[in-house]
Amino acid sequence: MSGTSADGIDVAWVDIRGRGLRLRAKLRDFCTVAYPAALRHTILRVANSNRTPGLSVAEISQLNFLLGELFARAVRRACRRFRLSLKKVDLIGSHGQTVYHQGRPGRLAGLRVASTLQLGEPAVIAERTGRPVVANFRPRDIAAGGQGAPLVPLVDYLLYRHPSRGRLILNLGGIANLTVIPAGASLIEVFGFDTGPGNMVIDALAARLGRGRFRFDPDGSLARRGQVVEPVLAELLRHPYFRRRPPKTTGREEFGEHFANQLWQRASRASGRDKLRTATELTVRSIAAALDRFVLPRTKVQEVILGGGGARNRFLVTRLRETLPQLHFLPAEQFGVGEKAKEAFAFAVLAYLSWHGEPANLPRVTGATHPVILGTITPAPPRKERK
Amino acid sequence: MSGTSADGIDVAWVDIRGRGLRLRAKLRDFCTVAYPAALRHTILRVANSNRTPGLSVAEISQLNFLLGELFARAVRRACRRFRLSLKKVDLIGSHGQTVYHQGRPGRLAGLRVASTLQLGEPAVIAERTGRPVVANFRPRDIAAGGQGAPLVPLVDYLLYRHPSRGRLILNLGGIANLTVIPAGASLIEVFGFDTGPGNMVIDALAARLGRGRFRFDPDGSLARRGQVVEPVLAELLRHPYFRRRPPKTTGREEFGEHFANQLWQRASRASGRDKLRTATELTVRSIAAALDRFVLPRTKVQEVILGGGGARNRFLVTRLRETLPQLHFLPAEQFGVGEKAKEAFAFAVLAYLSWHGEPANLPRVTGATHPVILGTITPAPPRKERK
Repeated sequence: MSGTSADGIDVAWVDIRGRGLRLRAKLRDFCTVAYPAALRHTILRVANSNRTPGLSVAEISQLNFLLGELFARAVRRACRRFRLSLKKVDLIGSHGQTVYHQGRPGRLAGLRVASTLQLGEPAVIAERTGRPVVANFRPRDIAAGGQGAPLVPLVDYLLYRHPSRGRLILNLGGIANLTVIPAGASLIEVFGFDTGPGNMVIDALAARLGRGRFRFDPDGSLARRGQVVEPVLAELLRHPYFRRRPPKTTGREEFGEHFANQLWQRASRASGRDKLRTATELTVRSIAAALDRFVLPRTKVQEVILGGGGARNRFLVTRLRETLPQLHFLPAEQFGVGEKAKEAFAFAVLAYLSWHGEPANLPRVTGATHPVILGTITPAPPRKERK
Repeated sequence: MSGTSADGIDVAWVDIRGRGLRLRAKLRDFCTVAYPAALRHTILRVANSNRTPGLSVAEISQLNFLLGELFARAVRRACRRFRLSLKKVDLIGSHGQTVYHQGRPGRLAGLRVASTLQLGEPAVIAERTGRPVVANFRPRDIAAGGQGAPLVPLVDYLLYRHPSRGRLILNLGGIANLTVIPAGASLIEVFGFDTGPGNMVIDALAARLGRGRFRFDPDGSLARRGQVVEPVLAELLRHPYFRRRPPKTTGREEFGEHFANQLWQRASRASGRDKLRTATELTVRSIAAALDRFVLPRTKVQEVILGGGGARNRFLVTRLRETLPQLHFLPAEQFGVGEKAKEAFAFAVLAYLSWHGEPANLPRVTGATHPVILGTITPAPPRKERK
């Protein structure tokens, strides 16, 4: 898979066996294959065309095929690096490159429609690798009334469920999201949502303070020396997103540059450190508030499994621990799947489930009306190749 | 399926059984469900965005989902009209709406890439109908080095092959294309290509002559009373496309408005009838030349099965018969599948083949390096719906 920042293609080699709750998945190896710089530029231009539309349909169509070639090449390169013969690969799961995602309906030609678009033509991947490909995971959940995201919580459930401990999987990406797995929960009891900003506002402020010299506050050391500007924080916490009931997802539209500018202006007399501290506290308190409002009234939680880039911001983690003293924090790494490999690993597992005809969206997480089998299957070449 | 003119969605109900050469397909019923006018406008704008790029990726993504909804609705409406329970439908084949097709490589970000893009999200169709869907037929052939078209010749083979007669399937659409099935041929011996203009130039001239009063020359009666402007015809027949070796495909890029204008200007002193006659003769002679150059040196042909809108242009058909007196002409209708239903019927058969893991492109027709299984499979809901 490739994330929204379009840095490159993550390839995970995963051994999977068993079905249902006896499914066992083991990460064997992982690597990232970078995109050529020119192509990354094209991807980001397509993905941002919503703000300045100037695309031709040819560009989308060609980019889809070109990304298919690059995904296939990434698989082949990764297999060489893993010393794994492609012939031994049973199935490829390809998330593709998201260039558009709108889980809640927008308008087209007077009609309301939600949609998502991942590029990376699976026919090209299947043809170049000779393996079957499961791709386009998100559309089916949207077709069933869901937001098409997040899809990783099912894999969280498989990795992290515990018979007697309620667990919270907290992923501190640009946006912070959480998955709640009650003690001894069945799949249907798992729920989750985006709490609001994770690193997004902190990074935006740090970039502005660093004036290009550094892109983020290394392990939160600047914020640590600042003071919270309480009136500004209180105002930011009144953002309606925080009170909206889950399932809910958010993104750059709500907590991107525009939101960071608001913090900057409202705290204009405060120092840079104070601004960073306030942004950090916004992440911490919005997570705590989400727990109080939407999680703890429904179920007990004892442990937090922490992941995402924000887990490397030591001050942010310290403040989370201080604010949620009743919870025991565990790093995601100790469960066998490192942070970087997590999503690619997850889509390998999701591909396996689709291949076996098992539903893999969680309606209480995505908002879908019912479970669905995700994705499309592109077959491998026939056994007797008629070349 | 829906054709490039985006008038509406063709739905064919087809009974299919057997495998390989014993496959039997019978058209049970057929109807067309019109697109809403506003949506047709949007589709044509997207499809034409290559000339005036001004799209956002949101439009493509939303149009894909919206078309999925409309294709699903068309299936449901057609089933009601056919008095066929959806539950009795084993499989849906959805060609989708082509918004881009470039079988020969173009450039993107400095790289060469051929591509094709059909919209009409299969996840939406599967979700709304509860049936499995085979879709996206063309990409795999392009991935295998083909032009992704034409795909109908395999179905021509199944319908029209004959143990002792060589047959030519001549389809007079906007572009004229032919499929050659030698007597007693195996699949691999079938070949075909676009010969050049079918009705495209005739229609463009007739529209200009009619000034909006009529869109084409009814059964060729105007052209019949005209004279061929021989020097102009000779010049037009020097177009390099006619000499290019098959497999080859062409379209509006080569024989559209621009080409019709050339005829108009070069024959500027001739009457409208003479221009129409010249355009008609261009179609006839380019087909005859294609036979002489690329078909008859390779195989014997006794019969022509004539289809496409041009088969209703009586003068065009008369001239074809006169020019090819050694061939016996048969109307496509007598083989059980009417002209209008032909393509929808064909994609039902192609879906069946993909579902059973059988390759369905013809390398000597599309130019692919080998046969491939076409399309992607989007599964039906699981049997035990966990609602």
